[in-house]
Amino acid sequence: MAIKVALMGLGAIGRGIARCALQKHDLEIVAAIDLDPHRVGRKLSDVVDAPTPEVVIGSDAGAEMRKAQGGILLHATGSRLDRIEGELAQALTAGLCVVSTCEELSYPWLRHPEIAERLDRLAQKRKLALLGTGVNPGFVMDRLPATLGAVCGHVGRVRVTRVVDSRSRRKQLQLKTGAGLNEEEFDRGVDEGTIGHVGLMESAALASLGVGLEVDEVDESIDPVEAEEDMQGDGFTVPKGGIVGLKQVARAFHDGKEVAVLDLTIALGAPQPRDEIELEGDPGIRVLIPGGTQGDKATAWTVVHAAPLVQGSEPGLISVLDLPAGR
Amino acid sequence: MAIKVALMGLGAIGRGIARCALQKHDLEIVAAIDLDPHRVGRKLSDVVDAPTPEVVIGSDAGAEMRKAQGGILLHATGSRLDRIEGELAQALTAGLCVVSTCEELSYPWLRHPEIAERLDRLAQKRKLALLGTGVNPGFVMDRLPATLGAVCGHVGRVRVTRVVDSRSRRKQLQLKTGAGLNEEEFDRGVDEGTIGHVGLMESAALASLGVGLEVDEVDESIDPVEAEEDMQGDGFTVPKGGIVGLKQVARAFHDGKEVAVLDLTIALGAPQPRDEIELEGDPGIRVLIPGGTQGDKATAWTVVHAAPLVQGSEPGLISVLDLPAGR
Repeated sequence: MAIKVALMGLGAIGRGIARCALQKHDLEIVAAIDLDPHRVGRKLSDVVDAPTPEVVIGSDAGAEMRKAQGGILLHATGSRLDRIEGELAQALTAGLCVVSTCEELSYPWLRHPEIAERLDRLAQKRKLALLGTGVNPGFVMDRLPATLGAVCGHVGRVRVTRVVDSRSRRKQLQLKTGAGLNEEEFDRGVDEGTIGHVGLMESAALASLGVGLEVDEVDESIDPVEAEEDMQGDGFTVPKGGIVGLKQVARAFHDGKEVAVLDLTIALGAPQPRDEIELEGDPGIRVLIPGGTQGDKATAWTVVHAAPLVQGSEPGLISVLDLPAGR
Repeated sequence: MAIKVALMGLGAIGRGIARCALQKHDLEIVAAIDLDPHRVGRKLSDVVDAPTPEVVIGSDAGAEMRKAQGGILLHATGSRLDRIEGELAQALTAGLCVVSTCEELSYPWLRHPEIAERLDRLAQKRKLALLGTGVNPGFVMDRLPATLGAVCGHVGRVRVTRVVDSRSRRKQLQLKTGAGLNEEEFDRGVDEGTIGHVGLMESAALASLGVGLEVDEVDESIDPVEAEEDMQGDGFTVPKGGIVGLKQVARAFHDGKEVAVLDLTIALGAPQPRDEIELEGDPGIRVLIPGGTQGDKATAWTVVHAAPLVQGSEPGLISVLDLPAGR
């Protein structure tokens, strides 16, 4: 029998999740929730531009969630856990498991241990599971390195480099990585949290723990990347020397020793786009993904593939490290 | 508290498993079993050439296994399931979970559905889990492709190429891949099952199922690889034109359509040693492991890392697709 699915959040990623879910015979979309007044009251099929079951987008989250009781919420409304805790709690209370793209939920024990504790307690009580996942965080820089640890001896350090040429990506990603800003705007954006990739520190913690390393501190730096020539964004041009994106580095430590370095560059025209994972060990391993793992579309697929696994999981707040390999 | 471990089989891989287990604080070796009269009665530490707990190698499997009751058997005695079913059943009956390097156990439903059924029933009854794993089968050509499926859409076909330069490997591997044989000897070896890699068809089935594809048929071919120049094996030379190894290809089908192609070359001097995994999909993914995943040492680590995961698993006969990512 198909798992009942409620969707929450129908921005670009949420609509992608809807389209992927339609292709999975083990999932049945029965409800959709969005707060954008342009979407509320419309047919889901019109908004996602694909033939869907007859679902009208609602704004009363509680009522819509109840339609999927015993099923799962596929959630894509925000990156910051403190702003969406209520939505997750509401879903658990309504009797739904949850898979969310919320980056901070991928390893919530890092920045929000109290929220993590509350959500875990609620999920345990309701005998439901919830998970934060995606491509990054959720796969390339954490779950995949952890999986590779299976063929390695003691790992001294995890190194992951991800380079994304943002010319191939959504304008929203170009902007939130600082393309087109001047230095002052970039620095202000970093301070205010509008510029930068959310979830890199979470990945650093996950990757370390996943290969059996302890972590007691995680930090990160965010720096602008300058254009080496004039560069075209989505509807704007950055002249040579201007800012085309960012280089963000997260480091995890144990007893003052660096145990993970995650190096992420997202910039218009970034050379040699790729994912590169190295586990230093005896034996260790080095893995290369030329071109790099797909972004948005793949994130939607991670959510949809995770749904039946989360539905069948032990109850509680889980992480991608708990997911089995197979679909 | 550490998990009690019994070792069974102290050949090259079994001794490797022992040495890896000694480095894991969550495992405690309490018994060791071997049938080779040169090893029985000797101290384990002498045989594995490492400081171990005080364990004397025994040949009475039942008595030795009972010492690890409630713990796990790390098993490395053979590749063919029909020859070792009794050993696995004995361990389950003695109250031990099992992780085995038996290649056919990685996906026993393929060639031995009745044995699989018997072992599963026994394991369920005893509330214990058993698993077959290693690097290949168990990781490179099955678990890893399945894991990569998380970031892909519908997968049309799984392609894996593994090239191993056997000059860097044990003489036993060089011989069982046909190095130094003439064509007649090679063909006879293939017919008799002494030449060839056991487990490739199992990997083809696992990889397909792991990315959500159905499989109703698996076949394979084994051909000799000829030396393009004089080539040095471990204690023997193969002249130009002689056989230096094999190329083995397994294919999985569903409704007559090829869903997986696993292409394995193991030969003295094989060019460009590597693992290459491609999932054809939208999005798909292509992953490269330059040099290729380590062999024997890594196999020992997969067994040892799997031990606590199997111990904590749902009971029954499981596969690597059921294992979570983290250690």
